[in-house]
Amino acid sequence: MSDNKSKFLAEFPKIVDELKQDLAQYGMPSDAVEWYERSLNYNTPGGKLNRGLSVVDTFAILKGTTATQLPSEQYSKLALLGWCIELLQAYFLVADDMMDRSITRRGQPCWYKIEEVNEIAINDAFMLEAAIYKLLKSHFRSEPYYIDLVELFHEVTFQTELGQLLDLITAPEDKIDLSKFSPAKHSFIVIFKTAYYSFYLPVALAMYVAGISDPKDLKQAQDVLIPLGEYFQIQDDYLDCYGTPEQIGKIGTDIQDNKCSWVVNKALELANAQQRKTLDENYGRKNADSEQACKKVFQELNIQQHYLQYEDSVAKELKTRISQVDESRGFKQAVLTAFFDKIYKRSK
Amino acid sequence: MSDNKSKFLAEFPKIVDELKQDLAQYGMPSDAVEWYERSLNYNTPGGKLNRGLSVVDTFAILKGTTATQLPSEQYSKLALLGWCIELLQAYFLVADDMMDRSITRRGQPCWYKIEEVNEIAINDAFMLEAAIYKLLKSHFRSEPYYIDLVELFHEVTFQTELGQLLDLITAPEDKIDLSKFSPAKHSFIVIFKTAYYSFYLPVALAMYVAGISDPKDLKQAQDVLIPLGEYFQIQDDYLDCYGTPEQIGKIGTDIQDNKCSWVVNKALELANAQQRKTLDENYGRKNADSEQACKKVFQELNIQQHYLQYEDSVAKELKTRISQVDESRGFKQAVLTAFFDKIYKRSK
Ligand SMILES: [Mg+2]
Ligand SMILES: [Mg+2]
Ligand SMILES: [Mg+2]
Ligand SMILES: [Mg+2]
Ligand SMILES: [Mg+2]
Ligand SMILES: [Mg+2]
Repeated sequence: MSDNKSKFLAEFPKIVDELKQDLAQYGMPSDAVEWYERSLNYNTPGGKLNRGLSVVDTFAILKGTTATQLPSEQYSKLALLGWCIELLQAYFLVADDMMDRSITRRGQPCWYKIEEVNEIAINDAFMLEAAIYKLLKSHFRSEPYYIDLVELFHEVTFQTELGQLLDLITAPEDKIDLSKFSPAKHSFIVIFKTAYYSFYLPVALAMYVAGISDPKDLKQAQDVLIPLGEYFQIQDDYLDCYGTPEQIGKIGTDIQDNKCSWVVNKALELANAQQRKTLDENYGRKNADSEQACKKVFQELNIQQHYLQYEDSVAKELKTRISQVDESRGFKQAVLTAFFDKIYKRSK
Repeated sequence: MSDNKSKFLAEFPKIVDELKQDLAQYGMPSDAVEWYERSLNYNTPGGKLNRGLSVVDTFAILKGTTATQLPSEQYSKLALLGWCIELLQAYFLVADDMMDRSITRRGQPCWYKIEEVNEIAINDAFMLEAAIYKLLKSHFRSEPYYIDLVELFHEVTFQTELGQLLDLITAPEDKIDLSKFSPAKHSFIVIFKTAYYSFYLPVALAMYVAGISDPKDLKQAQDVLIPLGEYFQIQDDYLDCYGTPEQIGKIGTDIQDNKCSWVVNKALELANAQQRKTLDENYGRKNADSEQACKKVFQELNIQQHYLQYEDSVAKELKTRISQVDESRGFKQAVLTAFFDKIYKRSK
C-alpha cells in the first residue's frame, strides 16, 4: 500500500472514535454504539479510496506542496473531508447493493447480507450519510465556507440520487426493454450517478478549503471533471466487455445484467434490423449463449474501434480545455492534469 | 376535513411542482420526473398532518394571531416548513415499512409493496429527504436563520435514526429476548424515534422563523415537548393493548409483534418469576393464545392502574413546567398548552 494511502487510512479510526463518542453523549446504550462502529468500519474503508485521497492531493497542488508536507492539523482536516466522501459512497453502496440484490462487495458479503443486519442496513445507510453532517459541523462550523460545504454535499447527493433513479427505472434487471436505452440517458446516468460525487466533489471541497472557490473557478473545474468522469465510466463499461479478467479483477457481467452500458448504447445506435433483433432477444439474459450472441453483434459493429475513436476525441478535447484554464485567481491546471493522467488509457 | 387542514393540503401541489421543475432543469427525462412526482404524492400527504400543521399553528400563537389570519405569503412559508417535516416523516416511513416488512400504510399498500417499485423505494426515500434541503435552500437561503434550519433538520434526523436503530436491535420481530428490554431503553427509543421530530421540531422551526430562538427558549420548549412526546408514545403503547378497535381505528398488534412497548416494560419491572416465565414464553409469538397469556399477566399486575398513575404524574409535572415558562423573550406558554391539550386523556 502506498504511504499516501496508509496515512489517509490512519485518520479513519479517529473519525470513528469521534462518532462513537457523539453517540455515547446522547446516552445510546453500548450495543447500539458498537453496531454503528461495526457499520462504519465494514462499509467505509476497503475501497480504492481514490475519491478521499483526491481531496488531500488537490489541496496540496493548489497550495504548491504535497500531501506529505502538509502540517498535520491541516492534513487531518482535508483527510476528514475525504472521509466524508467515502462515507457518502458507503451510504450509496449499502443501498445500491440492496437495490441490485448484490451478494458481495469488495470481497466480502454485502452489508445487508449479514444475517443480523438484513433490512436494518437501510437505517445504517441513513446513519452513514448523517455522519457527514456531524463531522462537517464539528470541524468546519466556524469557517466562512461551512454552508458551502453543507450545500455542496446536499447538491451532489441529490445529483447522485437522480442518476441512480434513472438507472433503476431504465435498466431494471428483470424487465428488459432496450427501447428505453439511449445515448442521452446513458450520459445522464453516468454523469449524475458517478461523475459529480467521484470527480467534481473532491476537487470542489479542496477548492473551498483553499479559498479558491470563485464560481468561475468551480465552473472551470466542473467543465473538465464532469466529462472526465463520464469518460471514466465509459472506460469502465468498455472494460467490462473487453477487458481481461486479469486486467479488471473480475468477470464482466454488464450484458447479462441488462446494464445501460456505453457498449450496448453504441451498438443500438449502429445496429441494422437483424442485429437489433439479436440484441432484443439476447441482451440481459442470464446465460452464456445469449451473452455470446450480443458480443458477436458488438464485434460486427466494430464497437472496439468506436471506443478508441471516442477515447481519442474526448482526450483531445479535455487536454485543450485544461490548457485553456485561467489560473489568474489561483486555480491550477495541474489539479485537472493529475486526474486526467490517472485515467487516460488505464487498463484497470 | 377542517379548513385548517385543507388550506395546508392546498400548499402541497405547489411544492410538488417546484420539485418537478427542479428535476426538469437538471435535464431529467420525463419518466423519471413522473416517478418522483408519484413518490412524493403517494408518500407525503395522507397522514394526520399534525406535525406539519403545528408549525403554522405555533407561529400564529407566537405572533398573537391565528393560522387563517396570517398574510398569504407568510402562511405559505410556514406551511412549507410544515411540509418539510411531512417529507422527513415520509422518508422515515418508506424505510420503516421496508425494515418492518409491513404490508399497508394509511389504508394503501406500502410504497415498496408496489410491484414496479420494490427496492427502488430505498432511493425514493433518499429523494424524499433530499427534497427538504432543496426547499430550505430555495425559500430560506437569504434568511439569517437558514443554517439553523438546516442544522436542526440534520440533528433531528440523526436523533430519529438513533431511536430507530435502538428499536431495531432491541426488538427484532424474529428474535425474541425480553432481557434486552428495559424502561431506560424504552424511554430512549420513544424520545429519539418519535418525540424529537414530532414534537420539538415543529415548534423549533416556528420559533426560528418568528425570531424567538434564544437557546434558553429552545430549551424551555424542549423541556416540555420531549416528555410530552414520550407521554404521547406511552399512550400509544397503552391504547394498542387497552384501546378498543373503535377507539384506535385498528387492532393492536404490539404483543404479537414483539414491540418494546411501555406496557411490557412495566410488566417486566413488576413480574414475579412465574409471570416472567409466562411472558418469556408468550410475548412476541404470533398467535392469539400467547397474546392472551400475556394480557392475563398484565391484568394480574394492574398495568392499567400503573398507566393511570403515570399519566396523572406526568400531566401534573408538565402543567407545572408550562406554568413556569419564562415569557420575557417572547416565547409563550400557550404554544405548549396547545400541544398538551391535544394529547392529555386522548382516547385515539
Ligand atoms: Mg450495484
Ligand atoms: Mg445499481
Ligand atoms: Mg461497470
Ligand atoms: Mg413500522
Ligand atoms: Mg419500525
Ligand atoms: Mg403503536
